[in-house]
Amino acid sequence: MNHPQLTQASRPLTFEIDAINEHGEIVPTSIAGEHPLTLYVDKREIVTLMTLGAAPEALALGYLRNQRLINCLDEIAAIQVDWEVDAVSVTTRHGRGIDTSRVEKRTITSGCGQGTVFGDLMAEIDDIHLPAEAKLSEATLYGLLDAVRVHESIYKQAGAVHGCALAINADPGAEILMFVEDVGRHNAVDAIAGKMWLDGHDGGDKIFYTTGRLTSEMVIKTAQMGIPFLVSRSGLTQMGWEIARKLGMTMIGRAQGKHYLLFTGEERFSR
Amino acid sequence: MNHPQLTQASRPLTFEIDAINEHGEIVPTSIAGEHPLTLYVDKREIVTLMTLGAAPEALALGYLRNQRLINCLDEIAAIQVDWEVDAVSVTTRHGRGIDTSRVEKRTITSGCGQGTVFGDLMAEIDDIHLPAEAKLSEATLYGLLDAVRVHESIYKQAGAVHGCALAINADPGAEILMFVEDVGRHNAVDAIAGKMWLDGHDGGDKIFYTTGRLTSEMVIKTAQMGIPFLVSRSGLTQMGWEIARKLGMTMIGRAQGKHYLLFTGEERFSR
Repeated sequence: MNHPQLTQASRPLTFEIDAINEHGEIVPTSIAGEHPLTLYVDKREIVTLMTLGAAPEALALGYLRNQRLINCLDEIAAIQVDWEVDAVSVTTRHGRGIDTSRVEKRTITSGCGQGTVFGDLMAEIDDIHLPAEAKLSEATLYGLLDAVRVHESIYKQAGAVHGCALAINADPGAEILMFVEDVGRHNAVDAIAGKMWLDGHDGGDKIFYTTGRLTSEMVIKTAQMGIPFLVSRSGLTQMGWEIARKLGMTMIGRAQGKHYLLFTGEERFSR
Repeated sequence: MNHPQLTQASRPLTFEIDAINEHGEIVPTSIAGEHPLTLYVDKREIVTLMTLGAAPEALALGYLRNQRLINCLDEIAAIQVDWEVDAVSVTTRHGRGIDTSRVEKRTITSGCGQGTVFGDLMAEIDDIHLPAEAKLSEATLYGLLDAVRVHESIYKQAGAVHGCALAINADPGAEILMFVEDVGRHNAVDAIAGKMWLDGHDGGDKIFYTTGRLTSEMVIKTAQMGIPFLVSRSGLTQMGWEIARKLGMTMIGRAQGKHYLLFTGEERFSR
């Protein structure tokens, strides 16, 4: 496989400002970076993402993957980020850009901070088959939660970001392969999807962890990556629950320390 | 003014499922609703929003307002929600729909869960002038935080939602006028914007509270509603900070109980 050429252009992730607390004291406070990043494919503008800027190349790739605008990593010759102009340029090998009608259809039915390409995604759920034999033990879950807890993070320093982790399901433990934070949880999950493509990782033997809520979109993106286990510190929505059940995904929420709630996929989980 | 005709079609907001906890016990658990809602203007499909469904008519209206697809409430004859088909139909008085080129430009530069109509929004910041004389006292801030704390909420019951409140700045106290929760914080803020239009509220004497992070988009939407005070339980991003400073907005984060951090607009705030 021809690996695309990549820049490695992450931004400074935190900044220090002076805030004033309830005692009138000046408190130096770390805040998370936030930058616009406009994505171009073969010089055509696709979208502007607001991002922490930790992994802009993987974010651009994962966005294109999860929106199914690019179907194969081989199509991509280069991903180049230039923060001077807040842009990431993706160059395809064929040079013809991406299917415009698909972009327009997608963006008409997607919303800002709100929507998802819902109709298309729901239609594709039926084509997703998570590996039936994959199992998760409670010991591995606790190992994952512990690994996440001790991981250095922007969240600990500055808050205001969501984190996602991709971990290997190595019973009776879990090893974090990737950990990405961003100002929006959808960016963090897209960046993980991009890194998985770049590093050639399959999802079947992995666990996906997110600090964010288990909404329909989070469940669908995890399934698209082929990952049978989804773990969150937060709660669940009704549609997230319905889709996970339909997919046969094992979904665990409110997971912190030695506490959790197993929502779906009990048959894959052992205590 | 001709008030639009409205349905009042909120959905059941929570559902009960059985989860299994770390002791192997079945735990009846409330989860938040999540529904697709496709917005049509004069029968033309605009966007699909994923929503809790608490205030779908106000959400549709606020979305159109905040995306600046509709500039005046008088343009709208009716907003009708039909959950049988997961649709909200907005009918304009002139019946010509909304400017298509504007929709396409917007959606090309907006991202799903990620983007904002960034370029346009930044250009409009210069035109926003928050009332210079507006002041906020610490006593009013504490009154607001107390009012939010005791407010009944889906979050307390089921988690997995963000809440926004619009409060009257009635020194030395605050009164919550509107409180909206949704699965995405952008939906909650849009629904407040819609309700403000419907009820004819001005922003100058108000305070906006959100459980969510103070990102660029949250700051810009608050400013577009003409509200000089933005308060959050959460933290701040760099761009949120820069834009609030530029706007002269008073922004307070990490606000809970008797604790807070004043980030910007110290000149409007009195301890």
